Amino acid sequence: MELTCGSGSEREVLLELVREAISASNPYTAVKNSLSVRDSAIYVNGQRIGEFRNVYMLAVGKAACGMSRAVMEILDVREGLIVTKRGYAEDCPRRRGIGVLEAGHPTPDAISIRAGEMGLKLARKADEGDVLLVLISGGGSSVFELPESGISLEDIVKTNELLLRSGARIQEINTVRKHLSRVKGGRLAMEVRGTVISLIISDVVGNRIDAVASGITARDPTTFKDAYEVLRRRGVWDDLPESVRLHISRGLMGKARETLKRDLPNVHNFIIASVEKACEVIARRGAEMGLNTAVLTTQLEGEASEAGLVIGAIAREVALADRPVRKPALMVLGGETTVTVGNAEGTGGPNQELALSAARKISGLPVVLVAFDTDGTDGPTDAAGAVVDGCTLKELERAGVDVDGALREHDSYRALDRIGALLRTGPTGTNVNSMVLVMVGRPNAGPQDSPKQPKGSYTLTRTDHGARHGG
Amino acid sequence: MELTCGSGSEREVLLELVREAISASNPYTAVKNSLSVRDSAIYVNGQRIGEFRNVYMLAVGKAACGMSRAVMEILDVREGLIVTKRGYAEDCPRRRGIGVLEAGHPTPDAISIRAGEMGLKLARKADEGDVLLVLISGGGSSVFELPESGISLEDIVKTNELLLRSGARIQEINTVRKHLSRVKGGRLAMEVRGTVISLIISDVVGNRIDAVASGITARDPTTFKDAYEVLRRRGVWDDLPESVRLHISRGLMGKARETLKRDLPNVHNFIIASVEKACEVIARRGAEMGLNTAVLTTQLEGEASEAGLVIGAIAREVALADRPVRKPALMVLGGETTVTVGNAEGTGGPNQELALSAARKISGLPVVLVAFDTDGTDGPTDAAGAVVDGCTLKELERAGVDVDGALREHDSYRALDRIGALLRTGPTGTNVNSMVLVMVGRPNAGPQDSPKQPKGSYTLTRTDHGARHGG
Repeated sequence: MELTCGSGSEREVLLELVREAISASNPYTAVKNSLSVRDSAIYVNGQRIGEFRNVYMLAVGKAACGMSRAVMEILDVREGLIVTKRGYAEDCPRRRGIGVLEAGHPTPDAISIRAGEMGLKLARKADEGDVLLVLISGGGSSVFELPESGISLEDIVKTNELLLRSGARIQEINTVRKHLSRVKGGRLAMEVRGTVISLIISDVVGNRIDAVASGITARDPTTFKDAYEVLRRRGVWDDLPESVRLHISRGLMGKARETLKRDLPNVHNFIIASVEKACEVIARRGAEMGLNTAVLTTQLEGEASEAGLVIGAIAREVALADRPVRKPALMVLGGETTVTVGNAEGTGGPNQELALSAARKISGLPVVLVAFDTDGTDGPTDAAGAVVDGCTLKELERAGVDVDGALREHDSYRALDRIGALLRTGPTGTNVNSMVLVMVGRPNAGPQDSPKQPKGSYTLTRTDHGARHGG
Repeated sequence: MELTCGSGSEREVLLELVREAISASNPYTAVKNSLSVRDSAIYVNGQRIGEFRNVYMLAVGKAACGMSRAVMEILDVREGLIVTKRGYAEDCPRRRGIGVLEAGHPTPDAISIRAGEMGLKLARKADEGDVLLVLISGGGSSVFELPESGISLEDIVKTNELLLRSGARIQEINTVRKHLSRVKGGRLAMEVRGTVISLIISDVVGNRIDAVASGITARDPTTFKDAYEVLRRRGVWDDLPESVRLHISRGLMGKARETLKRDLPNVHNFIIASVEKACEVIARRGAEMGLNTAVLTTQLEGEASEAGLVIGAIAREVALADRPVRKPALMVLGGETTVTVGNAEGTGGPNQELALSAARKISGLPVVLVAFDTDGTDGPTDAAGAVVDGCTLKELERAGVDVDGALREHDSYRALDRIGALLRTGPTGTNVNSMVLVMVGRPNAGPQDSPKQPKGSYTLTRTDHGARHGG
């Protein structure tokens, strides 16, 4: 198969898919697409939930403003509270009866506690016949918190820090957090007499609803015993604040309240946006374009450069042996890879590093790969990710870039920037984690009549999500 | 889907496939399956090569003895030379006219050079009407060598060491090696007036015939200029032995002989065993068992534990969402992962580490995964690899194993041994690299009436390759 380097049309197709993935997962759009009112009844995803007297709204997380805006265009909200990360409230709807708080993230602060108090109060207002609409997105765990009595904010922060330093996994940390809180682990939902409808945007690999924003309306599978075992296993028990040890001990003896352990009939949780849904949207679009599509996984994890090698190896197999998918093929992956920086002083992000690493495996083959964070920010850079193809390795070498060295130094940003392979979208307002799209071969259908563009920095503008090519 | 922990029947199916993969790739078997004589003519894979007066045989590499034995059962060999790694000649055929040499590996020694001289002499004996049967397997690059005149064995060894220390990739090292040798890079084949039939067992990811044993009968795509650029790029040029610098410089000026640059009509190269072929055999067998099979890649690379996470993520997707393959599914991967040990003091191998890492992602799911080295030796251990399933993580935790810690310390062997998850085959005589087989769900057809065995150390015995279960 001939490899046409420098032709932008395959990249154009992929960038179109990137735009669609970001737009389909946009918080405002996701609420608009899932929530509706017909004959005075509320529907979610076409499912009738019921008619309600009063609508209360509690939005927590980084996407709280966008989600609230959509809700307030659809429903008549009697009273609401929007809690988001400091600096994220710019496009928040402002109205009498709708409180807006900007709280600490990634570490909770006094405003987070105030938000927890106010949120709990609001939740209790939703009486039988009323509905509490809970809008949940990533970051909610930090901006919305209310510790059990006797436990201070400082105790919570210190416990978090101890666990983080001990190498505990995020699931383990969440298990502990939930058992120190009066709102997490479904505890908020337990306070509501009316109906609860939670619309959830998941930024968590695996889409466990109890994991997004520590699941304030979700059943919690973990127990005080689990929390205790985490603290013991990670060797932090003895260093914990006295109040935390006391509360966990009381829990073990059945003297403290457990998290929500059953499905409440008045609580309805819906994931309305997630990397899984975004992957499915893209797979459908790819199929419409005549591509043989396969969602390889929606639970991608691991060290970015190594994941890039494995994904590159699969792309190579498609290119050379027409398997596991026949050409023209589109493979879609969702999830979150990580970069272990160590002492390296380079600049980059997991998606850039994944793409740069994969470029080594697809060199000379008719493969185009884009890896990007749906929020538009990959690592501490102004890029969302990168686009690489079968010519990228040669281009990098021609530009004098030592690819192995750049990967070793975690300096993917500068390497990719030299050949205009970075993808820049600006902040998207969307956050359903990262995606990797791999196209092998040329789609039969698709925008073939689109003008060939010179290669360059691929920029998705914020307003129209249209592709633009810079120097 | 229900997860039946402790039932061995899914494992039985996978172990049966392991046995078939190893047996199909066995050097003796591979030659027997590909080489034949009908009406005095030699056939390879059913393709008629021709009738020949005299048959000469040159076998180099770790599998040289087994391959030779098969050839000598099929053909009347007039004269031959078998060159293998020291200690690998036990089952070598011994006969008048067949020389056997045991040479250095991984570093060439004086016997390697003696082998190169004798091999070149033998190759020149094959006149028009004769055939030189060349049997190539991994390790050939070291046990069979003849430097260009003026370059000593020490110069070759020093150049190799410099390149290895510089972080050069194996392809780069081979590019240099080929341009210092009178046998590598197709140079041996250029000396033969008669017909050359090369039967190649590939232990190289990607199956480039010029890469196995430095391609003594294969066209070489690299040039003196490439070799020079490698030496410059890796910063070793100034430290090279004078003789090496001189020879490369002469090559750049067109005054030294280039490697083979075209397909010679009298040379026929066949890959008769490789991880790719083994993957295809297993995929066919899986399909016969009623499993939906997919070869994900035959070019797997990367850090073992991270590859395990990605493969685990794909298995998870199959288990939870029936994609990219529907259940019951068998996914097959081939290649070679690596373990970057650093200062860790654990015991293990890449396949064990891959399996242990993947166990974290498949926990609670109806997945069985086996990762193994086809040569029976994974890292510096007595295990070939490991078998893990949806219960493994829980079993490890119950046994008090800190899984993340074991991975961090590269101590997969001891962790897996505690729960009897190691796969022991003993030396197999086969070496086509490593494979990963992942079964999700239960096969409809298959050995369902086989007695359920208690879980334990899964041992494949050397003689009959039959599964046995120990304590």
